Amino acid sequence: MAKPLSLDPNRLFPSDLIQRSIARELYEGVAALPIISPHGHTDPRWFADNTPFADATELLLAPDHYLFRMLYSQGVSLEKLGVPSRNGATTTDPREAWRLFSEHYHLFRGTPSRIWLDHVFANVFDIDIRLDETTADHYFDVITGALAGENFKPRALFDRFNIEALATTEGPNDSLDPHKKIAASDWNGRVISAYRPDPVVDPEHEDFQNALDQFAKITGEDTRQWRGYLNAHRRRRADFIAIGATSSDHGHPTAQTADLSDRECEALFNKVITGDFDTGEAELFRAQMLTEMAKMSLDDGLVLQIHPGSFRNHNDWLFKTYGRDKGADIPMRTDYVGALQPLLNRFGNDSALSIIVFTLDETSYSRELAPLAGHYPALKLGPAWWFHDSPEGMRRFREQTTESAGFYNTVGFNDDTRAFASIPARHDVSRRVDCSFLARLVAEHRLEIEEAHEVAADLAYRLAKRAYKL
Amino acid sequence: MAKPLSLDPNRLFPSDLIQRSIARELYEGVAALPIISPHGHTDPRWFADNTPFADATELLLAPDHYLFRMLYSQGVSLEKLGVPSRNGATTTDPREAWRLFSEHYHLFRGTPSRIWLDHVFANVFDIDIRLDETTADHYFDVITGALAGENFKPRALFDRFNIEALATTEGPNDSLDPHKKIAASDWNGRVISAYRPDPVVDPEHEDFQNALDQFAKITGEDTRQWRGYLNAHRRRRADFIAIGATSSDHGHPTAQTADLSDRECEALFNKVITGDFDTGEAELFRAQMLTEMAKMSLDDGLVLQIHPGSFRNHNDWLFKTYGRDKGADIPMRTDYVGALQPLLNRFGNDSALSIIVFTLDETSYSRELAPLAGHYPALKLGPAWWFHDSPEGMRRFREQTTESAGFYNTVGFNDDTRAFASIPARHDVSRRVDCSFLARLVAEHRLEIEEAHEVAADLAYRLAKRAYKL
Amino acid sequence: MAKPLSLDPNRLFPSDLIQRSIARELYEGVAALPIISPHGHTDPRWFADNTPFADATELLLAPDHYLFRMLYSQGVSLEKLGVPSRNGATTTDPREAWRLFSEHYHLFRGTPSRIWLDHVFANVFDIDIRLDETTADHYFDVITGALAGENFKPRALFDRFNIEALATTEGPNDSLDPHKKIAASDWNGRVISAYRPDPVVDPEHEDFQNALDQFAKITGEDTRQWRGYLNAHRRRRADFIAIGATSSDHGHPTAQTADLSDRECEALFNKVITGDFDTGEAELFRAQMLTEMAKMSLDDGLVLQIHPGSFRNHNDWLFKTYGRDKGADIPMRTDYVGALQPLLNRFGNDSALSIIVFTLDETSYSRELAPLAGHYPALKLGPAWWFHDSPEGMRRFREQTTESAGFYNTVGFNDDTRAFASIPARHDVSRRVDCSFLARLVAEHRLEIEEAHEVAADLAYRLAKRAYKL
Repeated sequence: MAKPLSLDPNRLFPSDLIQRSIARELYEGVAALPIISPHGHTDPRWFADNTPFADATELLLAPDHYLFRMLYSQGVSLEKLGVPSRNGATTTDPREAWRLFSEHYHLFRGTPSRIWLDHVFANVFDIDIRLDETTADHYFDVITGALAGENFKPRALFDRFNIEALATTEGPNDSLDPHKKIAASDWNGRVISAYRPDPVVDPEHEDFQNALDQFAKITGEDTRQWRGYLNAHRRRRADFIAIGATSSDHGHPTAQTADLSDRECEALFNKVITGDFDTGEAELFRAQMLTEMAKMSLDDGLVLQIHPGSFRNHNDWLFKTYGRDKGADIPMRTDYVGALQPLLNRFGNDSALSIIVFTLDETSYSRELAPLAGHYPALKLGPAWWFHDSPEGMRRFREQTTESAGFYNTVGFNDDTRAFASIPARHDVSRRVDCSFLARLVAEHRLEIEEAHEVAADLAYRLAKRAYKL
Repeated sequence: MAKPLSLDPNRLFPSDLIQRSIARELYEGVAALPIISPHGHTDPRWFADNTPFADATELLLAPDHYLFRMLYSQGVSLEKLGVPSRNGATTTDPREAWRLFSEHYHLFRGTPSRIWLDHVFANVFDIDIRLDETTADHYFDVITGALAGENFKPRALFDRFNIEALATTEGPNDSLDPHKKIAASDWNGRVISAYRPDPVVDPEHEDFQNALDQFAKITGEDTRQWRGYLNAHRRRRADFIAIGATSSDHGHPTAQTADLSDRECEALFNKVITGDFDTGEAELFRAQMLTEMAKMSLDDGLVLQIHPGSFRNHNDWLFKTYGRDKGADIPMRTDYVGALQPLLNRFGNDSALSIIVFTLDETSYSRELAPLAGHYPALKLGPAWWFHDSPEGMRRFREQTTESAGFYNTVGFNDDTRAFASIPARHDVSRRVDCSFLARLVAEHRLEIEEAHEVAADLAYRLAKRAYKL
Repeated sequence: MAKPLSLDPNRLFPSDLIQRSIARELYEGVAALPIISPHGHTDPRWFADNTPFADATELLLAPDHYLFRMLYSQGVSLEKLGVPSRNGATTTDPREAWRLFSEHYHLFRGTPSRIWLDHVFANVFDIDIRLDETTADHYFDVITGALAGENFKPRALFDRFNIEALATTEGPNDSLDPHKKIAASDWNGRVISAYRPDPVVDPEHEDFQNALDQFAKITGEDTRQWRGYLNAHRRRRADFIAIGATSSDHGHPTAQTADLSDRECEALFNKVITGDFDTGEAELFRAQMLTEMAKMSLDDGLVLQIHPGSFRNHNDWLFKTYGRDKGADIPMRTDYVGALQPLLNRFGNDSALSIIVFTLDETSYSRELAPLAGHYPALKLGPAWWFHDSPEGMRRFREQTTESAGFYNTVGFNDDTRAFASIPARHDVSRRVDCSFLARLVAEHRLEIEEAHEVAADLAYRLAKRAYKL
């Protein structure tokens, strides 16, 4: 007999009754605010084409590396979960994949995926029994059935989710046609992009040489000359801005920046485009490009996001077989104090620039990032990211950054997801956890309740809107 | 007038009444489960010979480096505490040592030792007044008197402690006779060993050359040839398996692994056995040996435990005077992401292998270990270890690993102790702290109560049994 | 209409009613204890000359880098806040600066500055409405008016604050005349110094060469000879001891120590005084000097404080324009295990020596510092420092150090401030947070209430007095 599924209205609030009632009150003031999603990985074609999602597996399981990495860690094969490999889509029956996932749903106990999924099941699909091996088919049928309807097409979900703005992420060589199609349509949803030039900025990217050539074609610039290469970026940033982008994003292995002379830049560039460079030169080139991007930001206004510290594709066999983004990226220890100094010394005192830094290394919160953001006008802290985008992770973020950086050197929440249906769930978790943190400050007489209301709305909505110029 | 000693039934549970009642309920479901102790340092001769322990000092104080290190830090001499030096046993009167310890018992306020000891005093020896300078003699008399009785002999305590299986730790050159004697006896206690080959694996071990020679004698292999050396390990692992061992254990300075070719291995081996090698080569040899042990594990089924990151014998004078394991081992910053990659790329996708990794560097929980264990099928996380085997340490372990690794990539509790009488106390602390963590999840509506019951039993009993193949 | 300002008697205590009532009870036992301030940066001339502070801005804003760094991070210019630059005092009107600060007071929500300031406003100046842009002038008038009165002169405040002893910090070339003047006066306040020789110890200090010359003049020793240089330190330490100093203090980039032979020392010294040395030699010299200071401490009894791990003057432009201590010092990752070993191997087993180590890298609490302090007789842990001198920071300090180091290898609280008026506020926060930590231990039955009372008084008063020999 199936167990009931219901979302408790007090979920994620502290159980201490004093804190809980304050958290609840604060949350009620922000629960209905529109969603600002300034950084994420949904596919703009969903909203351009508005084609229905096929089934529960395609919507919820196959694109979500949080899910299949956990299943994989317990010996479940990616093939059987319907995860496409380099050879293309699997032949796995989506229903079979869903059943396999359902049998292992207990693995997610205590994880944010469990919270997000239950929210999606209950709030998006109105399911009222819990997922396990006995209810797998019921779930598959209900979800797959719903997806066929008009109300579950991408644009309808976007509207229903109360999303005010959603940023996707594209590379310089990606087409912006989906965004143009959305803009040209009669639908009012605001779907913008973010400029993520990693493939043409990282000399160690497996596609760097080809990407440079394509970058030349798409911009009409000579991307094998330093000046032309920089112009290509400028042009492409302008293209992104034209379809609404307000930020660039940079996923480097480290946070290293540099501030070389023009001559040094040119010499370094001439070296890396030959393919004959060492790892130090590749690092230095990426480092310098962050500073170049900052220069361009001062001209064109894009907010500069830095997402460092992920050891990408840690599992060789998995990478060869399945490719990128399959759950095998692992955080690394990351330095910011030395690494960001060249960039901050160049532009850190300029309030006109907005640099948002993220970390996967929580030790940097109180030691490096909060002190840096609590000093430099150009620097802000992105929210708890990826593995730390979770109730405990968000709590640690506030506990470890607020005392040195305050709330106003942070930028609200990013869902950073490719799991579209989970966007409201993720923002809801963030709002609940932030309200819980504020409730503790109020309950301990460290903040007045009316201030907490104001901060709660800042964290849930206003800071993201302001920091990302939305 | 002596103060009362009594163990509160709610000790270690949150004081929040909602969480406390859930924690209590969960705890009551697991409190009486048998103890699985898959990793520890008790002496198998205790159970082979079943000789009574001599007195309170011999049982509780002299072998417990948690205790005498704290006393030493406050200027109490080890000599006076009855700690044997390299010159042999002290001439200190055990009662005098016990008095000295008792006078300083306040130093343990807020430490796990205090919790463990009070548990032992109250539950094992039925003492109902607190330890201090005024009750020192009473304690010494009660404990020493009890130890002379039949019910306090090692086997009787083992049975009374409800231990289902206990692993000791032996080196390849240690005798397994005590284990054989236990097996041959009419006593049913399950006392097994774990294969810890550090002295013949670490070229920098002070005894490496002699140990290699002895390793040859004990196995009949030519341990000065790479093939023979590996065969010696295989044979000795088989001997350990024959007396019940299910795991090997490796206490390296770092978590570094390597995956060299056969030819490289042989050349490296030939170098280290000459004694003419540098620290990098010693490190590389230890690194390669972890991969060799993993290969053997795939053949013989031993679980591979890695305990890295302790700076051994930090205090030169103490090491020269008192030898190893005298409280002067200090944790070091430890990398896992790069260090484990060679081993994980070789075998990490193989569910047939079970690698359990421990850390003394808590920063690796959320940044490295939980993400790694939440991906690789072969990798599991050992519990909070050594300095972190404590209420706060265990709480941080769950808070920082669960969201990325879940509960099911962890392996239950290890007491890791040579303080035999404290084993039930240590497991009790672990069960209470885990139930408290689960209670918070339930109270915050992140987990259902009936799931929490299941997880509580997994953490207290089933996961250890499964992970260690007991 | 202005909002009321009142300090809740339960502020900073847990809201859990069981813990709160215990915390309150413990706090009431220590709230009125005198203040021991063994480490700080107030100006001894305040107490020597007893000149009134000029206005609210001069007293509270301009000297407090915690305040103006936060305002600066949000684009407020230091000039307009009345912060003096290298060109001297600003021409900014103090009232205008105060208004600017008041308008931005919301930036301090969730920070310790907010707590300290509200305490000062309410308790020192009896203000009962909250600071914001509408009350800025009221605040400025009330505070500035009060400061003109006899009761708000430095000595009167010192007495009113119930300060039993206050240490300032001076360099070897600083005059000790203010301290002598205080001693010679009819006022009984105990204002001592601490010997901080960084400018003559750090070869990379911008003033090193000049400082050496001045050091020669002030001591009559040949500070360009190794022996003379050491003698100069000995003499100057004696001068400091004569005006009451009980400690030296060392603000090095790292915690590195060394134990070189006399010949090596002399050769290294001869190198660094030429100015022709590399960064490794500068580091080695500073490292050796910690060991030299420890040797002198064994002779003259000064407690040795080590404050490592700050990347000083991270912001070049700010340093060039405004100089040191303007909020641009950023914590760095800091190693202690390897770094302290040379010093600890030389003197760590000697209980006659007292070394107090601080950290800005919280990761070292549980991994390195608590294990080291829980072993070496000569080593104690300083309290949560600088960015971590905050409710959350202090809580983490206790949670992460107590289980391995206990309470008795820590040394009570340091306010470490140049913001004189905030000293009672800072000690009050520390007492409240420590009592809250103890209350949790009592509520979880890990400590008896009467022990907690004793520990609370130790942490609030007795440990600092004992550790600093006051």
